[in-house]
Amino acid sequence: MAKEVANREENYSLWYNNLVVKADLAENSAVRGCMVIKPYGYAIWEKIQGQLDKMFKATGHQNAYFPLFIPKSFLSREAEHVEGFAKECAVVTHHRLKANPDGPGVIVDPDARLEEELIVRPTSETIIWNSYRNWIKSYRDLPILCNQWANVVRWEMRTRLFLRTAEFLWQEGHTAHATAQEAIEETEKMVNVYADFVRNYMAIPVVVGRKTEHERFAGALDTLCIEAMMQDGKALQAGTSHFLGQNFAKAFDVKYADKEGNLEYVWATSWGVSTRLMGALIMAHSDNEGLVLPPAIAPIQVVMVPIYKGEEQLQSMVEYMKEIGKELDALGISYKIDDRDNVRSGFKFAEWELKGVPVRIVVGQRDIDNGVVEVARRDTREKSSLQREGLGNSIKGLLDEIQANIYKKAIDFRDAKTCKVDTWEEFKEKIEEGGFLLCHWDGTSETEAKIQEETKATIRCIPLDSYVVEEPGTCIYSGKPSKQRVIFARSY
Amino acid sequence: MAKEVANREENYSLWYNNLVVKADLAENSAVRGCMVIKPYGYAIWEKIQGQLDKMFKATGHQNAYFPLFIPKSFLSREAEHVEGFAKECAVVTHHRLKANPDGPGVIVDPDARLEEELIVRPTSETIIWNSYRNWIKSYRDLPILCNQWANVVRWEMRTRLFLRTAEFLWQEGHTAHATAQEAIEETEKMVNVYADFVRNYMAIPVVVGRKTEHERFAGALDTLCIEAMMQDGKALQAGTSHFLGQNFAKAFDVKYADKEGNLEYVWATSWGVSTRLMGALIMAHSDNEGLVLPPAIAPIQVVMVPIYKGEEQLQSMVEYMKEIGKELDALGISYKIDDRDNVRSGFKFAEWELKGVPVRIVVGQRDIDNGVVEVARRDTREKSSLQREGLGNSIKGLLDEIQANIYKKAIDFRDAKTCKVDTWEEFKEKIEEGGFLLCHWDGTSETEAKIQEETKATIRCIPLDSYVVEEPGTCIYSGKPSKQRVIFARSY
Repeated sequence: MAKEVANREENYSLWYNNLVVKADLAENSAVRGCMVIKPYGYAIWEKIQGQLDKMFKATGHQNAYFPLFIPKSFLSREAEHVEGFAKECAVVTHHRLKANPDGPGVIVDPDARLEEELIVRPTSETIIWNSYRNWIKSYRDLPILCNQWANVVRWEMRTRLFLRTAEFLWQEGHTAHATAQEAIEETEKMVNVYADFVRNYMAIPVVVGRKTEHERFAGALDTLCIEAMMQDGKALQAGTSHFLGQNFAKAFDVKYADKEGNLEYVWATSWGVSTRLMGALIMAHSDNEGLVLPPAIAPIQVVMVPIYKGEEQLQSMVEYMKEIGKELDALGISYKIDDRDNVRSGFKFAEWELKGVPVRIVVGQRDIDNGVVEVARRDTREKSSLQREGLGNSIKGLLDEIQANIYKKAIDFRDAKTCKVDTWEEFKEKIEEGGFLLCHWDGTSETEAKIQEETKATIRCIPLDSYVVEEPGTCIYSGKPSKQRVIFARSY
Repeated sequence: MAKEVANREENYSLWYNNLVVKADLAENSAVRGCMVIKPYGYAIWEKIQGQLDKMFKATGHQNAYFPLFIPKSFLSREAEHVEGFAKECAVVTHHRLKANPDGPGVIVDPDARLEEELIVRPTSETIIWNSYRNWIKSYRDLPILCNQWANVVRWEMRTRLFLRTAEFLWQEGHTAHATAQEAIEETEKMVNVYADFVRNYMAIPVVVGRKTEHERFAGALDTLCIEAMMQDGKALQAGTSHFLGQNFAKAFDVKYADKEGNLEYVWATSWGVSTRLMGALIMAHSDNEGLVLPPAIAPIQVVMVPIYKGEEQLQSMVEYMKEIGKELDALGISYKIDDRDNVRSGFKFAEWELKGVPVRIVVGQRDIDNGVVEVARRDTREKSSLQREGLGNSIKGLLDEIQANIYKKAIDFRDAKTCKVDTWEEFKEKIEEGGFLLCHWDGTSETEAKIQEETKATIRCIPLDSYVVEEPGTCIYSGKPSKQRVIFARSY
C-alpha cells in the first residue's frame, strides 16, 4: 500500500502526523504555523460544527460576528487577560503596500502606518464586551447569549497540525447575565453541552472538571473543562467554559439598570472548542491502519466497493449498489460508491480504512447471485456476510453498534490507564507510563509548579463528574492535608 | 414609535443606515471600517449561507479552509493581481507585544519583526494555488472543486455597513481544470447558481452579464457577474465568477500530466459572493416602515402577537398560539410568539414590521371565539381574517404568494427604470434619474473611461440573459459602430 503510516507503538508522533497528512485531513501551508484544512478534514469539522451549532441553538444561543481585529489598547484593559494573550500575537501595523522603487515586487508603504496597531484576535472578550456596552441598558436586555464561529490567531512557536496552530478555527460563546448565579449556571450548562457532544458524537470519554487557579483562563474567576485521554496516555483539554465574574464588564464599563433602577455591573461567561477537537478525534481512536471515525461524525459512513471483471460488469454492479444506496439514503446514512477503474480493490480497501470509513460493503457477482453482501467494520476489522434483504436496517444497527463499541473501547483504555497514586516515588515512576494519576494535592500553586518542574505533569482538573474521590488524604508532594484527589497527567 | 427610520424618498442613504442599525442587523465597531453583525443580521446571513452551501454541494463542490495570511511575495507573483489587491490591505509586521517599559499598557516588541510581512487575505487565489501545486500531479487529480467560507480584509477608505467594509464575510470558490473549455463551463455554471439563488431565494432580479476588460477581476481573462438594481436606481454587483485562464497556474507553477504524459498548466476559475448580499437584500425590498424580507430568507417567517387583558388571558392565548405553532412547525415554517408583557401590541407590530417578518398573526379573544385569526402581510401591509381551521396551509400559501409578489414588484421596478438611450444628450439627462441605460458602446476602454469621468456611470455588464439587444448601432459617445447594447448605470 502506497500510503503507509508509521507504527503507533514505535513513533506515536510520526504516526499522528502521517494520519493527518495521508488521510487528507490537513497539511502545512507556506505560512509558518498556519494549516490548510483539506476537503475531507473540513467535512469532519462541518459535522462537528453542525451538531454543536444545533446544541447551542437548542440551549437558546444565537450566532453573531465580531471584528477580526482588536485595538491594541483593548488588550490592556483587563490586567490578567493582557498577561495571558498579549504575548505572542499577529500585529497589524500598516494598511498599504506599494511598488518597490528599488526592484521588483511590493514593499510596505511607510506612510500607511496605523495610528494604533491592531491585533488579530487571539480570543474576543475585549472587542465583544466593548460592543455589549451599547447593547445593554436594563435587566430587560439580559441575558445576552451569543456565539461566534471564527478564526483566531495565537503566534505559537511550536506548532502541530490541529493540536497547536498559529491560526485555528473555533467557536467562542460570550454571554452576559444579571446575576453571578445565572452566569455560573451558564458556565456549567455549556461545559456539559461539550461533554455530551464529545462523549456521544465523537465517542471520546471526558472528565468534566475544574481548573486550578494556575491553569485558569486569563481573566476568569473559574474555568471548567473537559479532559480526554489520548492513546499515548497524555491528556488533551478538549473544551473550556469560563465564569468571568464582572472583570470584563468593569474593564469595558458595562452596567445595567435592575428592576429598582440601580446600576450594576454585568456578569459574564465565555466558552469555546476549536479544531483541536480534530486532533483529539484522530488520537483517541485511530490505529496503525489509519483513522477510525465514529459513525456519528463520519462524513462518509459506508463505502461500497465492487469486485468486477470488465466494464460491463462494473456498470451492472454500480446499478446494484445504487439500489442499496437508496435504502441507505432513506435511513439518513451517508455513503460513497467507489467505482474507480484505475486502482485495484485492495488499494481501495486500504484507502478507505486509512480514511476511517466505519463500514465497507463489498459486492461480487457470486454475492449478488446468493443475495448477500460482504460487510467489514472499520473498528474491529471483522467481516461478515449480510442478507441483501433488509440490508439498510442491518447497516443502521451496525453503525450504532460501532459507535457504542468505539466509545466503550476508549473508556476501557482510559480506565485502565487511570490509577490512584499515594507516594511521591510511585508518582515519578507512574507518570513515565502515561495516563491519569489520581492524587491528593495540598491546593497550592507552589506545589503544583514544583511537581510540573520535576515531572512535566500538570493538574488537568479537579474532577466533577468522573473519578471524583472526596476523601481526606495528604498531598503526594508536600504531605499537607487534602480533601479530594485531583487528576495529574502530562498533556498536549 | 421609538425606532423611526428616515424617509426613503428624502434621504436614501440615511434610510439605509437607519434600517441596518434599527432593525438590529449590524453596527460599526471600535475598529475603523469593521462591522459587528448582530444576531438578527447574522441569522439572515446563515439562511443565505445555508442555501448557497447546499447549491454548491449539489454542483459537486467541497468546502476546505486555507490560511488567513498570505506572504507578501505571493501577491507579486501574478502581475495584474498585485495591481488590483496589493494597494489597501492589512499588513502584519510583528508577532509579539510586550509590557510598555515607559508606562502602562503594551507596545509592539521591536525584536519580534517578521522576516517577511504577511498580508491578511483580500482574496485567496495566491495561497490556494500555492497549495494546489502539491495536490495536482495528473489529470486524475482534476478537477478540483473547492469552496471556502471565510473573512477577508480590504482596507477601504470609505465604508458603509454591509456594502463596503474593511473586513467582510464571503465564500470564494477556487477550481482547477484540465481544459480551458471545462473551466469556462464552470465559470458559467457558477454565475448561474448565483443568479438562481438571488432570484429565487432573495427575490431580487439580476442580469447575468460579462464585465468589460476594465471592470474585470485583477488576474482574470473573463469575469461574469450578476447585477441588481436598488430602489434608488443604482446598480449593485451581487456576485462574480472569473475564468482565470492559466494565469495562477503559471504564477505558482501548477502543471498536470495528461493521458499521454505531457505536462500542461492547469486552468482555473474563482467565484464569490459576500455579506454585500445583505446590503442588496435591504435596499431591494425595504420601505419606510422597515425591512421587507422574502419568506425564503427570513429567519422568522411568522410572528404571533396576542391581544389580551391580564396575565391569565395572556397565558391562555400563548397556549392557543403554541397550537398554531405546531401546525407551522410541521410545515417547516419558522415562527415566534411575542409574549412580552412590557410593551404594547402597537409597539410589537412596528418592531416586527421594522424587522421585515413576512407574516403577522394577531389573536384576540373574539377571534378565538369566532374561530378566526387576523393575518397581516408585510409586503403589501394588507390585513385579512383567516379561518383557524387549516391555518397552517393557508399561511404556507400566503408565504409563497408573498415571495412571488416581492420578486414581481422588484422586476417591475427594474423594468420601469431601464430604457434604451441613443444620444449622448439624453444619456447625460437620464443618468441623473438613475436606472439602467441600454446603450451602444464602441468596445474601447478609452470611451468607457471618458463616459465614467463625465457622468460617473460605468458599464455594469454586457448582458447575457436579460436585456440582450444584439443589433447594429453606433456608440453613444464616440459614434463608432457597435454590435450590441450594454448596461450603463451608476453603482454601489
